[in-house]
Amino acid sequence: MSSPLVVQKFGGSSVANAERMQRVARRIKRERDSGSRLVVVVSAMGDTTDELLALAAAITDEPDPRELDMLLATGEHQSATLVSMALHGLGVPAISLTGAQAGITTDGTYGRARIAGVEPSRIQHELDQGKVVIVAGFQGLSVAAPGHAETTTLGRGGSDTTAVALAAGLKADRCQIFTDVKGIYTADPRVVPAARQLPLIGYEEMLEMAHQGAQVMQVRAVELGWVNNVVIEVLSSFEDAPGTLITEDPHVEQRNKVRGLAHDRNVAKLTLVAVPDSPGVAARVFEPLAEAGINVDIIVQNVGHHGATDLSFTTPRVELARAKRILEPIARELGFRELTTDASVAKVSIIGAGIQNAPGYAARMFRALADAGVNIEMISTSEIRITAMIAEDQLPVALNALHAAFQLEQPEAIDSAAG
Amino acid sequence: MSSPLVVQKFGGSSVANAERMQRVARRIKRERDSGSRLVVVVSAMGDTTDELLALAAAITDEPDPRELDMLLATGEHQSATLVSMALHGLGVPAISLTGAQAGITTDGTYGRARIAGVEPSRIQHELDQGKVVIVAGFQGLSVAAPGHAETTTLGRGGSDTTAVALAAGLKADRCQIFTDVKGIYTADPRVVPAARQLPLIGYEEMLEMAHQGAQVMQVRAVELGWVNNVVIEVLSSFEDAPGTLITEDPHVEQRNKVRGLAHDRNVAKLTLVAVPDSPGVAARVFEPLAEAGINVDIIVQNVGHHGATDLSFTTPRVELARAKRILEPIARELGFRELTTDASVAKVSIIGAGIQNAPGYAARMFRALADAGVNIEMISTSEIRITAMIAEDQLPVALNALHAAFQLEQPEAIDSAAG
Repeated sequence: MSSPLVVQKFGGSSVANAERMQRVARRIKRERDSGSRLVVVVSAMGDTTDELLALAAAITDEPDPRELDMLLATGEHQSATLVSMALHGLGVPAISLTGAQAGITTDGTYGRARIAGVEPSRIQHELDQGKVVIVAGFQGLSVAAPGHAETTTLGRGGSDTTAVALAAGLKADRCQIFTDVKGIYTADPRVVPAARQLPLIGYEEMLEMAHQGAQVMQVRAVELGWVNNVVIEVLSSFEDAPGTLITEDPHVEQRNKVRGLAHDRNVAKLTLVAVPDSPGVAARVFEPLAEAGINVDIIVQNVGHHGATDLSFTTPRVELARAKRILEPIARELGFRELTTDASVAKVSIIGAGIQNAPGYAARMFRALADAGVNIEMISTSEIRITAMIAEDQLPVALNALHAAFQLEQPEAIDSAAG
Repeated sequence: MSSPLVVQKFGGSSVANAERMQRVARRIKRERDSGSRLVVVVSAMGDTTDELLALAAAITDEPDPRELDMLLATGEHQSATLVSMALHGLGVPAISLTGAQAGITTDGTYGRARIAGVEPSRIQHELDQGKVVIVAGFQGLSVAAPGHAETTTLGRGGSDTTAVALAAGLKADRCQIFTDVKGIYTADPRVVPAARQLPLIGYEEMLEMAHQGAQVMQVRAVELGWVNNVVIEVLSSFEDAPGTLITEDPHVEQRNKVRGLAHDRNVAKLTLVAVPDSPGVAARVFEPLAEAGINVDIIVQNVGHHGATDLSFTTPRVELARAKRILEPIARELGFRELTTDASVAKVSIIGAGIQNAPGYAARMFRALADAGVNIEMISTSEIRITAMIAEDQLPVALNALHAAFQLEQPEAIDSAAG
């Protein structure tokens, strides 16, 4: 029987300086001493990526995407070599590999490349030599142009994706994401004191949590885990405590209740006032935004009066200025009266498999918010989520009210009755 | 007739920050606008390499050489991408390549790899696309272990070597080394106010200058230029002025005089007092030093009295502590009485092709030093050089005295009479 293969991922704050890298190295050594073979994915140290972005911004307003990817990838090269050195310092044989050396191939989309495949022969070779393999996260090699291998990056948080892809490609026994929180919570514990750590969460629920602002795991990493059936454990790199398993939830049908709350402050609301209520208007509003790569989330169109209607929608707050620049020039063409914006809004979501199938959740949510004096500006729903957009300054009140209303502080029993 | 191909190299101080990179980009653009095709080699920004070394030192006392090379190579990746971005900002098509992408292969000696070859097809392809090619200096790809391509570095100043190797491999029309001095001087102008810039210097003389402490060009880059007959121009990246050509000196036979002075403070003197004057002693002293990779330069053995002799030699000052640690334990075995050391010494050299063939140089050198009140502790000579070891605090006096004695401030006429 061969020893278990474990993929571990340590984020930027876990490797922010020499002392923390040495702590990471000691943790890796402990796992290895317990008999595991180890592949470790690391992010860039602390704020390295932001510093490199600032450097590029000081050089030019629009950095070339290929050059930017090559620049950013160096951050993970550095941390990978340093963690490897720290392991050598503890007498643990180790070797660092770039994404390319680790056999991670991607498409050619710089800045947010998608992993095309994992060719693990080099990793396997190093594991067979008894080495811990440290892989630079967040990056891969595009062979889109034949003969011209190029470094690509996977987008923010891409190291999670690297770890899950390697766990899938290597058929690892475990995939552990070490982070600065202890796991996945029913709500952000910094805002909701009663928030409780979940021992387990389903892929789908985790995806909605991540989509709706819970920043613990990158959405694509969860998707990749789901597709490849990789059980992901999220746990703290600073303390020894059990984390949260992200996995196929066997009890999802019986559970059938709200599992957690998510919130997102990175949101802004735009309203086109008095848009002519004629066919094709919505397309002409949203097409140029899509072409500019601006995500539009909740869309609400009020009932029209006298042939005109108000069209409201949300974008990420960081895209607000760009969205305005795109829409204002076409105001005359589209015939709307004015464009109003509000950047002091936030989204709050309740999430749980089966919410949509069981009535009463929406009503309970709106009642809880109303009782707390929170006004709802927009609403959107999915299969397993209900989201309300509210004023940002009411977010703490709203989250705590919802957490209490759905009794999320109570350890979950598997209940077959809808809440 | 195709446009001329120029290789330019910019050192760390020339690309130390965003503003300097933009200046470098403007200079590159000017050369390109004049009709040249360009390959540009860059070093890491400012003190990046030292900062990365410090980071590694904070992690472990003895960083693994492979990991260290991968770490250090990131410095040049970063500056190459940023210079490329700066060119894009000026509307100049450009692409950065790592040493590996540029086709630079090396042996497997981490930390001071030697270039094995240049396979320029990728560079050629990018040049054919009309792009300026920015190459990360100081590095290459070792394929010593088949299938396991590894990043290597060429040692301090290796970017000079990268530039000369590319100029040779691409059969470039010019190879320009931009630096923070205007060219090669008859002596260090910071110490000798009368020092004069040389318009031209032969490879052999330049090699001796570099060996003896002139830090403008890396020794290996000069050797490589010599072997491949690459004419190297050293010039300032901060002002527009003609530099110094390093080339086969057609007038070397007629010139036949002192071309310049070099000095080196990175030197220490060790003396084994009262060594038994028996065969094999010197070998037993120098073998362990050689095994430890410590260079020994000048060696002087005094005439022995009563079967014992004093053996003095020099090492780089930074190696003094290590040399002592190696020799002290074998004092008893070798039978010497004590080991004395002196770290406050320096070397001063006069350099010129043909010095050895023409008598009188040594006498004039020693007379000039004596007249200036400088005591000579050790002497060594080569074909084209005479070196004296003196007290470090007398270095300025010695250099200025020699500069005057050999009339180095006077523009050189080609003279067939020895000085």
